[in-house]
Amino acid sequence: MNVEGRHYRTIWALADGAVEILDQTRLPAAFDIVRIESVERMAHAIRAMEVRGAPLIGVSAAYGLCLALRADPSNAKLLAAGQLLCDTRPTAVNLRWAVERMTTALLGVPAADRVARAYELAGAMADEDVAMCRSIAEHGARVLLSQLETRGGSEPLRVLTHCNAGWLATVDWGTALAPVYELHDRGVPVQVWVDETRPRNQGYLTAWELGQHGVPNVVLTDNAGGHYMQRGLVDVVIVGSDRTTRRGDVCNKIGTYLKALAARDNGIPFYAAVPSPTIDFALADGAEIPIEMRSPSEVHERAGMRAENPAFDVTPARLVSGIITERGMVNANEEALTGLFPERSF
Amino acid sequence: MNVEGRHYRTIWALADGAVEILDQTRLPAAFDIVRIESVERMAHAIRAMEVRGAPLIGVSAAYGLCLALRADPSNAKLLAAGQLLCDTRPTAVNLRWAVERMTTALLGVPAADRVARAYELAGAMADEDVAMCRSIAEHGARVLLSQLETRGGSEPLRVLTHCNAGWLATVDWGTALAPVYELHDRGVPVQVWVDETRPRNQGYLTAWELGQHGVPNVVLTDNAGGHYMQRGLVDVVIVGSDRTTRRGDVCNKIGTYLKALAARDNGIPFYAAVPSPTIDFALADGAEIPIEMRSPSEVHERAGMRAENPAFDVTPARLVSGIITERGMVNANEEALTGLFPERSF
Repeated sequence: MNVEGRHYRTIWALADGAVEILDQTRLPAAFDIVRIESVERMAHAIRAMEVRGAPLIGVSAAYGLCLALRADPSNAKLLAAGQLLCDTRPTAVNLRWAVERMTTALLGVPAADRVARAYELAGAMADEDVAMCRSIAEHGARVLLSQLETRGGSEPLRVLTHCNAGWLATVDWGTALAPVYELHDRGVPVQVWVDETRPRNQGYLTAWELGQHGVPNVVLTDNAGGHYMQRGLVDVVIVGSDRTTRRGDVCNKIGTYLKALAARDNGIPFYAAVPSPTIDFALADGAEIPIEMRSPSEVHERAGMRAENPAFDVTPARLVSGIITERGMVNANEEALTGLFPERSF
Repeated sequence: MNVEGRHYRTIWALADGAVEILDQTRLPAAFDIVRIESVERMAHAIRAMEVRGAPLIGVSAAYGLCLALRADPSNAKLLAAGQLLCDTRPTAVNLRWAVERMTTALLGVPAADRVARAYELAGAMADEDVAMCRSIAEHGARVLLSQLETRGGSEPLRVLTHCNAGWLATVDWGTALAPVYELHDRGVPVQVWVDETRPRNQGYLTAWELGQHGVPNVVLTDNAGGHYMQRGLVDVVIVGSDRTTRRGDVCNKIGTYLKALAARDNGIPFYAAVPSPTIDFALADGAEIPIEMRSPSEVHERAGMRAENPAFDVTPARLVSGIITERGMVNANEEALTGLFPERSF
């Protein structure tokens, strides 16, 4: 996507092997590119949410393994680095998916060739992420357009989203926001209600990237979306996911479940945009997904007051109108998901 | 309630006629008592939320009329002051109720006696507010205890509340928190999940006053309550109200509706604690209640980004398990509410 008219991805490797990222803890106040030279620094970047969003942390972990092997191409280092990266954040399945995929491929490669092969693979995973997001853009645009036709009238399509599942959560384009960009680029009027998304305020990332692309948007507190749905001001809800089970339970940023309930109560469709590496075919029930508890200091640091800070919740499949993947939109159930990805369902 | 062991109300008149309040925009960081000498200054205090909470702004408006009459006891001043006060905040019905009650009583009083009579009336309304909250404490404690019995086990009763409907929202004791204090004082173990309540963060008022009284509590972001309900960590939800219709639609702080939906989805009872001046018997449907839109700057002040800031939403009666009034708990419907308050239903 473009920032001040110049094209960027969220992560890239330099010719010398170092990796650069955009520090998302500083956005939107500052646009800082950070150079990362070790797997330990990459693990910190993931833990501290300098990079965030399930697809992007998968690719970040892949590049983290490249950096580890650059320092030491041994099996021991590869496995230790994989463990270090997987331990950073427990909920997003993309992290484990990327580490397993890289490790499986690289263990069979002689140490002398490993570094080059690792960068090739990580680069291919980044390109693949972009391609999946492009497909989601097209399939999702079709879904949103049919929503607009159902509604009728000349108002712009009014989309509500929670957290950031845009360009910044992926390598490029985004998941939930990809269809929004697609429609906007086709000249279809669309506007976005952006949930603030406490405690980390990723809504401001969403508002910023939508603004850079020229998509009209308005930030709401996390409390307000239900009221806007009651008042008929929301046509469709679309969110990303950090892990979706094979039955279609959608784990996403804390608070997503509340918006799914409000959408159901008001007859508004609720979609999750989910590239297939985010689907955990090993899990049936969303209640089995480990929910990351982050520091209470992200909520507040008032002396003498306690807080708790779960980072994700699970929206049960019964509240999900459809799951938009790179292969198309399907119902949120096991038959549909395993039918679409038969190779993942052994 | 006690602050550092000393008893306070949230508002009181001094011998010289000035009125003192606790500045709630400064709490909990600072405990500032503010002296108010004019109706214009009181209108500002209500508008800026130095005083807030439907019951407290009703009593504040009553004292505001006293201050107006102290400056000029004429009919013209009384009516102009009433208009000024009613214009400060559109949603809470207590403001209009208090102004109408004071004005009706005082228009029949000779100008020479008006000031003294106004302070008498305002003082009586403050005492009446305390008495209503005491009754809500007792009726509500019965409701919560039966919840604890239904649940069984030895865990403390786990109550979730949104915004601040405690001591600080009333003259003393609170509405939603009154039964919590009552149980705690009887030695029944109770703990409170406190919604942060963006954008004004009234949850920190709730955490502060619960802490002053020794009631265990934990602040959660507004996004988290649904997840805690899914995980079986919430026994009951109890909130206040800014205006409740005769059919039992409950208008309360923005975000309340989302918690009511989550409570219903998880089989958790959802109660509103509502002193009768908060019930608007003239209104049937919650959709008719004017919803205050406050400044987007309360949400954020990031250049180039838009925000909207509705301050309240309406929880439809179908999601309300019961309305706890000073005369007892009733179902959220017209027959029950008009049966309990027949004198209000002509």
